[in-house]
Amino acid sequence: MSKQQINVGLIGYGTVGKGVVRILEANKKIALRKAGVPIKVKAICDLKPIDRKDLYVKNFRDIINDPEIDLIVELIGGYEPARTIILEALKAGKNVVTANKAVLAKYWDEIFTTAQNCQQSIYYEASVGGVIPVVQGLSEGLASEEILEIKGILNGTTNFILSEMTKRGVSYGEALKSAQQAGFAEANPSFDVDGIDTANKLAILASLAWGGWIKVKDIAVKGIADLDIQDVLITQEFGYDIKLIGSANKTKDGIDLSVQPCLVKHDHAFATVENEYNAVMITGKDSGDVLFYGKGAGQGPAASAVVSDIINMSEFIVTNTAGIVPDVVYDKKTKIKILPSGKSKAPYYLRLNVVDKPGVLSKISGILGNNKVSIASLAQPDVSGSDSVQIIIITHETKRENLEKALKQIDASKSIVKTKTVKIKIEL
Amino acid sequence: MSKQQINVGLIGYGTVGKGVVRILEANKKIALRKAGVPIKVKAICDLKPIDRKDLYVKNFRDIINDPEIDLIVELIGGYEPARTIILEALKAGKNVVTANKAVLAKYWDEIFTTAQNCQQSIYYEASVGGVIPVVQGLSEGLASEEILEIKGILNGTTNFILSEMTKRGVSYGEALKSAQQAGFAEANPSFDVDGIDTANKLAILASLAWGGWIKVKDIAVKGIADLDIQDVLITQEFGYDIKLIGSANKTKDGIDLSVQPCLVKHDHAFATVENEYNAVMITGKDSGDVLFYGKGAGQGPAASAVVSDIINMSEFIVTNTAGIVPDVVYDKKTKIKILPSGKSKAPYYLRLNVVDKPGVLSKISGILGNNKVSIASLAQPDVSGSDSVQIIIITHETKRENLEKALKQIDASKSIVKTKTVKIKIEL
Repeated sequence: MSKQQINVGLIGYGTVGKGVVRILEANKKIALRKAGVPIKVKAICDLKPIDRKDLYVKNFRDIINDPEIDLIVELIGGYEPARTIILEALKAGKNVVTANKAVLAKYWDEIFTTAQNCQQSIYYEASVGGVIPVVQGLSEGLASEEILEIKGILNGTTNFILSEMTKRGVSYGEALKSAQQAGFAEANPSFDVDGIDTANKLAILASLAWGGWIKVKDIAVKGIADLDIQDVLITQEFGYDIKLIGSANKTKDGIDLSVQPCLVKHDHAFATVENEYNAVMITGKDSGDVLFYGKGAGQGPAASAVVSDIINMSEFIVTNTAGIVPDVVYDKKTKIKILPSGKSKAPYYLRLNVVDKPGVLSKISGILGNNKVSIASLAQPDVSGSDSVQIIIITHETKRENLEKALKQIDASKSIVKTKTVKIKIEL
Repeated sequence: MSKQQINVGLIGYGTVGKGVVRILEANKKIALRKAGVPIKVKAICDLKPIDRKDLYVKNFRDIINDPEIDLIVELIGGYEPARTIILEALKAGKNVVTANKAVLAKYWDEIFTTAQNCQQSIYYEASVGGVIPVVQGLSEGLASEEILEIKGILNGTTNFILSEMTKRGVSYGEALKSAQQAGFAEANPSFDVDGIDTANKLAILASLAWGGWIKVKDIAVKGIADLDIQDVLITQEFGYDIKLIGSANKTKDGIDLSVQPCLVKHDHAFATVENEYNAVMITGKDSGDVLFYGKGAGQGPAASAVVSDIINMSEFIVTNTAGIVPDVVYDKKTKIKILPSGKSKAPYYLRLNVVDKPGVLSKISGILGNNKVSIASLAQPDVSGSDSVQIIIITHETKRENLEKALKQIDASKSIVKTKTVKIKIEL
């Protein structure tokens, strides 16, 4: 044990990167107490020059190849050059901390195989759930468990937008605008609002839970961009909140994976998760439900998680034991069976904009029944000032493919509905 | 790396011990995948012979001195011989897993100093919050944080009793009886109901959070045994639930530590924590609030946490790296300043059983005011069939010593109150 200091190379100096430098400086005594030696940022790489001229490095390879640097923090996000940076760093004998869910989900196999081969450590707690220590909670805290289910509100942007729509009764477009103004949504919000970000995070958690590589393409993904404020308001009346939920469920026929807007009852643990907060519920066979909750976005929470990773990793680097125990137990040969999305079972909320003629209801219930979709409850809310008739149906648990077949038939008939039927999964 | 198998020696074969053996057997593939080698229970020690005759060992020293055993699990609870077992095991070069909060809180210094000196590992996730991975969440997930506050519902027995009183409107005595019948309270429930168990767990979390040894005697402890069902019912009407909360709060004058029944608003995150569930809220400067929630009692959850510790530790034992990075960063010389309990500030609920005469209210408000206790609201609920007059007061935030001085004066006056005034802290 000869290290007198841990030298960090930071690549990417945006909001989170600045937060990392700030927290490492403000909490240097805490870091010293835990790591045993001081932790210093020795170099920072960014596309353009930064305010810390003394630390600025233009080429990331100068950081990777600096023999004094022990640990590289990748905070640029996206696929490339993030993937190259992580792989080259591992191969150069550096340990890596990253908050990049996209690159991890897409190159899981390559990254963790490289880390194992190079016997280097890669920590990524900040990639899922912001400050919530759910990566470690799942992979270590619940190490003994047969994991039955994971579900989570994993994206702060969409949760902020849904909170705005619910609280203020405004449309998706307006809610997006205020999220952008509040700094919670980017100019091009597609990655968040289309559910891709949630899917990346879910793929990471599911891969950890079941020990294989679960890919984003294994997940049925639906975002919130076409959500109608009408459905937010109607479902509120019925006792539900709408949340974008990533869910992975172990069934006897495979893992059922989806990201979609879901309805949760007002007394569900997820109903009170507002704005930029995230929550993850993990259910194990012996543990039962374990819930983690905290801020999923913002400089403080994201940078805090990154700095915790840096401190924890430094303890191992100082004692020359980093990378010996693999951070992700991953074996290429482990194949995980995925449930085809059509076989996924859940109850649904349906809103049908029907033709106001006798016999329509009987046609609808006939088609649903023929497709094995059974009705739990049905209502015709009074929509004042509208000449259309809306029918709200809550179904019993139904196979998604059966429901889709039924709705295809219903929506094809001009004598039944005027517009496409809305369906939203109900999360129990 | 020569180990072909991890051999576990189990000391204590009660409910949790049996659960550990069951889960290790049922989930042996999961354990193998993570540890890389099989994990086997090689010997079990208990006071009396057990059903597993092939594994039974009468003397715990035969386990400690068995050169084939890698890891010792202490599940007998209490102070002795638990302390001796843990210390002798560490000195004999064994790693230790324990669920024993009492022995850890009382011998923190001796146990973790011995572990460091012997370079052995000691894991104890199951000692706090049952299956909730809060020990790791606090010490690693939030490693970078300046911890501002920890509060938790940490005892399943008292939470079950309080849930019963609230839901069924029964007295403490009756609720205790049903907890005993349901297997959630022992014949002698003092350790739980007097708040000692919660105080042990709080001492562990606080010691981890602030890096020194915070002792149970530093904590102002009050249990639930003298809680009057009247106060449960009245405070329900006022929008509160009663929970036994362990709380550690960093103030500029020291850490404010207490265990006591507290009132939380119906919309507080703790209000919905029912029966055997536990919850811990940790607030860091950058992280904000992070909540952990799950089952705090029962065979499955407790044994699950122990087996997770066994698996995580086995990964290090297999690679000969266990004990190199200390599990608790503890330096004897770190002194933590404790706030004297009288200086603790909170709002309070008061119930005064007053003499029904003019001028009483003015006397009460006079005494409170003279002691700097200010009234936020006051009510006289209609207690039908009673000849006493009850006054309910909610105070603004007040120093505990000021309130106690005021109540001492009030309770000393036969012309003001008929019985001792009830006070309950309000947790915001």
